[in-house]
Amino acid sequence: MPAYTPLTDEHLAFLRSCLSPDRVSTSAADRDLHARDQSFHAVRPPDVIVWPETTEEVSNVLRYANRQRIPVTPWGAGSSLEGNPIAVNGGIMLDFARMNRIVSVRAEDFQVDVQPGITRIELNKALARYGLFFTPEPGADATIGGMIANNAAGVKTIKYGATKDNVLRLEVVQASGAIIRVGTRARKDSSGYDLLHLFVGSEGTLGVITEATLKLAPIPADFSAVLAAFESVEQAIQSVVDIVGAGLEPSALEFVDKETVEALNRDKSMSFVVAPTVIMEFIGASDTEGLQMALEICKENGATNFAAAVGREERNKLWEVRHHTYESLVRLHPGFAQKIMDVAVPISRYPEIVLFADEVLAQHNLLGYKFGHAGDGNLHINIIHDPTDPEQLDRVERANGIIVERAIALEGTATGEHGVGIGKRRFIIQQHGPALDVMRQIKGLLDPNCILNPGKIFLDADDMTDVSSDRA
Amino acid sequence: MPAYTPLTDEHLAFLRSCLSPDRVSTSAADRDLHARDQSFHAVRPPDVIVWPETTEEVSNVLRYANRQRIPVTPWGAGSSLEGNPIAVNGGIMLDFARMNRIVSVRAEDFQVDVQPGITRIELNKALARYGLFFTPEPGADATIGGMIANNAAGVKTIKYGATKDNVLRLEVVQASGAIIRVGTRARKDSSGYDLLHLFVGSEGTLGVITEATLKLAPIPADFSAVLAAFESVEQAIQSVVDIVGAGLEPSALEFVDKETVEALNRDKSMSFVVAPTVIMEFIGASDTEGLQMALEICKENGATNFAAAVGREERNKLWEVRHHTYESLVRLHPGFAQKIMDVAVPISRYPEIVLFADEVLAQHNLLGYKFGHAGDGNLHINIIHDPTDPEQLDRVERANGIIVERAIALEGTATGEHGVGIGKRRFIIQQHGPALDVMRQIKGLLDPNCILNPGKIFLDADDMTDVSSDRA
Repeated sequence: MPAYTPLTDEHLAFLRSCLSPDRVSTSAADRDLHARDQSFHAVRPPDVIVWPETTEEVSNVLRYANRQRIPVTPWGAGSSLEGNPIAVNGGIMLDFARMNRIVSVRAEDFQVDVQPGITRIELNKALARYGLFFTPEPGADATIGGMIANNAAGVKTIKYGATKDNVLRLEVVQASGAIIRVGTRARKDSSGYDLLHLFVGSEGTLGVITEATLKLAPIPADFSAVLAAFESVEQAIQSVVDIVGAGLEPSALEFVDKETVEALNRDKSMSFVVAPTVIMEFIGASDTEGLQMALEICKENGATNFAAAVGREERNKLWEVRHHTYESLVRLHPGFAQKIMDVAVPISRYPEIVLFADEVLAQHNLLGYKFGHAGDGNLHINIIHDPTDPEQLDRVERANGIIVERAIALEGTATGEHGVGIGKRRFIIQQHGPALDVMRQIKGLLDPNCILNPGKIFLDADDMTDVSSDRA
Repeated sequence: MPAYTPLTDEHLAFLRSCLSPDRVSTSAADRDLHARDQSFHAVRPPDVIVWPETTEEVSNVLRYANRQRIPVTPWGAGSSLEGNPIAVNGGIMLDFARMNRIVSVRAEDFQVDVQPGITRIELNKALARYGLFFTPEPGADATIGGMIANNAAGVKTIKYGATKDNVLRLEVVQASGAIIRVGTRARKDSSGYDLLHLFVGSEGTLGVITEATLKLAPIPADFSAVLAAFESVEQAIQSVVDIVGAGLEPSALEFVDKETVEALNRDKSMSFVVAPTVIMEFIGASDTEGLQMALEICKENGATNFAAAVGREERNKLWEVRHHTYESLVRLHPGFAQKIMDVAVPISRYPEIVLFADEVLAQHNLLGYKFGHAGDGNLHINIIHDPTDPEQLDRVERANGIIVERAIALEGTATGEHGVGIGKRRFIIQQHGPALDVMRQIKGLLDPNCILNPGKIFLDADDMTDVSSDRA
């Protein structure tokens, strides 16, 4: 690990002169607010929080921090799930709350330029008047900067792609303070190396995003959503495979296990049939035929029950229920915490990973709720546990590790959309093999002093045995 | 420029022992066949051609060449348009004709694993029995390796994305001979840096692709294609913008200028209305409504005439005509050559670049045929000229340069799908600015001896004044 310089009064004086004194804080309250994300990784407050307002300020802070060997960690909404923005080595936290403007809406190009601190919901509210929206839809109201840094995805990915598919251009400040622009406003580009995608998903470890040009889609005029209940997980997933194979293009294709359906029924007073369920949504006036064909496919695969949520309001209610699974589970299990898992596999392996997870949870005597973006092979499991019980935490971590390793063995990934952060570092060698060396080399090239969000993605060789340090 | 080692008998002996003598050739005939692509950049035969059959052989050749400082250039079908695979420094050419197997079809995952030497048409023939196809469709029957190296695209990009959107995993041999695998079979991934997209579009300058996992789509059951003729380019493009803005999802949305329509009529005995034309295609039984709405939009924008090509056969004929524009122009202008231009701009700037190109061509007294993937803002111009007349060639290059620079100034790109190769090197500084340094650093990191396809993408500082060296 590189030796970092502890923060001194001189450093603070520089930051106050570089920004303005009211945008630099070392107060305990501010530090505590920036000490953890939504994961249960060890809390660690940064030494100082700064709120830049311009790219130049970000550049000045980075240039200085790089010379002084002070870690710098960007902060969006703190909604991440793998400890991605926890300042594990302290140092400076760059909070983007004051860089949250829409720089320009270019409706005629289906594009918007934004600063990284704007949140997804805020952005989409402003875009609604143009009939456009930014499609990636993770449950949380993350900032756009955080979504890009993490390559966030969500329920709409099957139709619109992940964040990486919806970013055209980035302004990035390098560790040295140099400001570069990568990508183009054109929708197609074969000019030179794809640096854009090198920064997307790099979790703030290669550069700091200060502006982004996003690709937008027209807000669909109509939606129809249907829940299909099946006797088995296999039937449910076979339907997912067949729907994609038929060339249908749902805007969502979600799996929810029967335990989760039951939990949502109880918490939200819904009356869905308690069974392995596929939620499918189709958009646009022209796709009612698509929905009909999807229903036929589900019937052929043995769907026992259908519940339709036709129209915008019913459909919004359905997704609200689905997006609030975490909160519903909090209410149903008071005093307990949830480990939120995220793996993805090739779609044909989805039943296998779901059933395997069941076995592993049972073996470890753990209760887990399983659901996810089946059309993308992406599975989430919320594992319920008592966070004050080290033995339970151990069991959760062991079960998590076994399931993640199986996902990788099935030629999938340790993380479909939550990023590596702290929590998935221990799997990255198994997943990437020799390619990990190339990642390390690129990290060394672009951040030679390792000041950018240190302690993320890569597990240092001497941490290898200390897997338990991954959690609080 | 790095100093390369001239090829010796000792090197040849190594190559013969490393592969087998019959897969190593220095014959004039073989060297001539690998001396140029479809562009008019200076012909340069490699010193030796080798035909590897395995990844290990590629690795052994690269490790050796790297130690010996011998340039290595991968070769697919030679169908590129910017001199991308011309061995400008001689050395070893890796011809992938014998690594052209389908390794495995995984229909249930909508994936196929292929070696790089298989061509697009060959692959799609084999996939047809599964009802699947690899969607990127450049006109040429390029190899998959070449398409990935170049991030090829084509008429289907508006619906399915470019090659970069349809590659999930690559096996890559590095300059050192190290073999790495990047990406995953899962459709979603947030695990570590996106090395996959760093290699896609890198034109063989960062590593050599030896296997690829491609994303496939179901072959649509139905197509309907319509040509709409307009009085003006602006009306045509406004229709394109409105079709996308209405949330319609055509599988193609092409612009063809009236000169090109006239040329196709003459050469192919077609009877299309001679006017700025939009070709739109919709797929799937469920999208007849989409087509109807698109026609309404065209009418509102002043379309004066429609010609429908409904059904597979008529539609295939239409695309055959469109894809053979180059050949039609060859026949109409015997003895003349075509400079095939490729730029892309934000869609709202498409009329501007089309009209600007008209002016520039007129000023330079040149005849150019304009058409392209308007839905992506991608414009091609085939400029007719006498290749034996240096003064004409100069005019073509000047007009080309002015149009490309305008595309970049409009926040577009010097190349939407043909790559940088030799021909677009002189624009890369203007387009990328300081980000170009990062590209150079990555090149230096991954290929420190600069043996991989040297002379492409980057213009060495001492070449800057020698722009005319870009052409034969």
